[in-house]
Amino acid sequence: MHPPEALLSDEFDPGFRTSLEALIRLRRDVRHFRTDTVPQATLTRLFNLAGLAPSVGLSQPWRFVLVEDAARRAAIRANFTQANAAALAQQSAARAGLYARLKLAGLDQAPVQFALFCDPDPEQGGGLGRRTMPQTLAYSCVMALHTLWLAARAEGLGLGWVSILDPSGMAALLDVPHAWQFIGHFCLGHPATHDSVPELEREGWETRRAVQVLTR
Amino acid sequence: MHPPEALLSDEFDPGFRTSLEALIRLRRDVRHFRTDTVPQATLTRLFNLAGLAPSVGLSQPWRFVLVEDAARRAAIRANFTQANAAALAQQSAARAGLYARLKLAGLDQAPVQFALFCDPDPEQGGGLGRRTMPQTLAYSCVMALHTLWLAARAEGLGLGWVSILDPSGMAALLDVPHAWQFIGHFCLGHPATHDSVPELEREGWETRRAVQVLTR
Repeated sequence: MHPPEALLSDEFDPGFRTSLEALIRLRRDVRHFRTDTVPQATLTRLFNLAGLAPSVGLSQPWRFVLVEDAARRAAIRANFTQANAAALAQQSAARAGLYARLKLAGLDQAPVQFALFCDPDPEQGGGLGRRTMPQTLAYSCVMALHTLWLAARAEGLGLGWVSILDPSGMAALLDVPHAWQFIGHFCLGHPATHDSVPELEREGWETRRAVQVLTR
Repeated sequence: MHPPEALLSDEFDPGFRTSLEALIRLRRDVRHFRTDTVPQATLTRLFNLAGLAPSVGLSQPWRFVLVEDAARRAAIRANFTQANAAALAQQSAARAGLYARLKLAGLDQAPVQFALFCDPDPEQGGGLGRRTMPQTLAYSCVMALHTLWLAARAEGLGLGWVSILDPSGMAALLDVPHAWQFIGHFCLGHPATHDSVPELEREGWETRRAVQVLTR
């Protein structure tokens, strides 16, 4: 599993960098999926790549939970529906109609669904680097997820992050240690379409803006 | 700046995927830097790529702050030294010696240093998607940082995350709005060496383990 030695000292070539930029630019938060399955070998490869993400003190605190059971999937869908209704009530009348039309979850279509939790006190890593900022554990989990997201897009797969959930019941719902911190729930599969522009931008909800960098 | 249309519908090719895997595998948390500078055009390109990261509700809450002033750099170094001493005192005697030998910051060598903050209540995005999990704003910032990290490595540059800091004083130290949430401080530059194995693993501190995926 070791890379060619040449890559250790050499630069990645310009063609790769151009494609990497395209990957970053074309990665979408996908909500519309085809229902055909994702091969197990592909899933395994994606999770293994996620495990190469940076983690504070090499603690690797990410805990992935594939959700296959129909009753658990239904319970997550119910959690989403309730949280989504509450979110809708908070929006102004003018935006509520638009908000309601945005399909915010692929929960009904995506063939693969998984949750991501963070172990808030992993033995691995010996506590290194996180005394003043324990939230770096959650941040490590997010980088693992983001690694998987990019790698999935490179395989033509799409991922959608379902953040409109009440996190408090997720550990019990999925029968994992109650101390585990819920990071997010994710839909994965072949996207119905490959879009170059985010859905929220296409729908007129919001537009991307240039990064502002302050100097001090 | 739009990608070739071909990339919208076609798969990325196997050669790209192999190189992407190498990039993910070879990205290191760099602590030892050469002191030569990074061209401004490179920095601009990296920050612009970071701005293409996913963000909840397209809120783009990341706020990057380049730290160039010598007095501010010294203040951050002092913050690190104090937090590091406290962390050292918490380690067992057996590990303290090893811990002390690990150089945990490139603060004295890296030509580029920047902090990352999160706007905890950005107007952009209209609040979409974060009512139940406001921490998704910070997670969005982490994905922007991780995007920059990978893109930097593809250019032969290294990045190091300095997490051993007391976050409470960082907004005041860098004269940014006090409400902004400190995510991390980062060193960027040409790495002294390209390593295929994490420093913590080389030094015997910790070893990476395979990802465990539960099924429910």
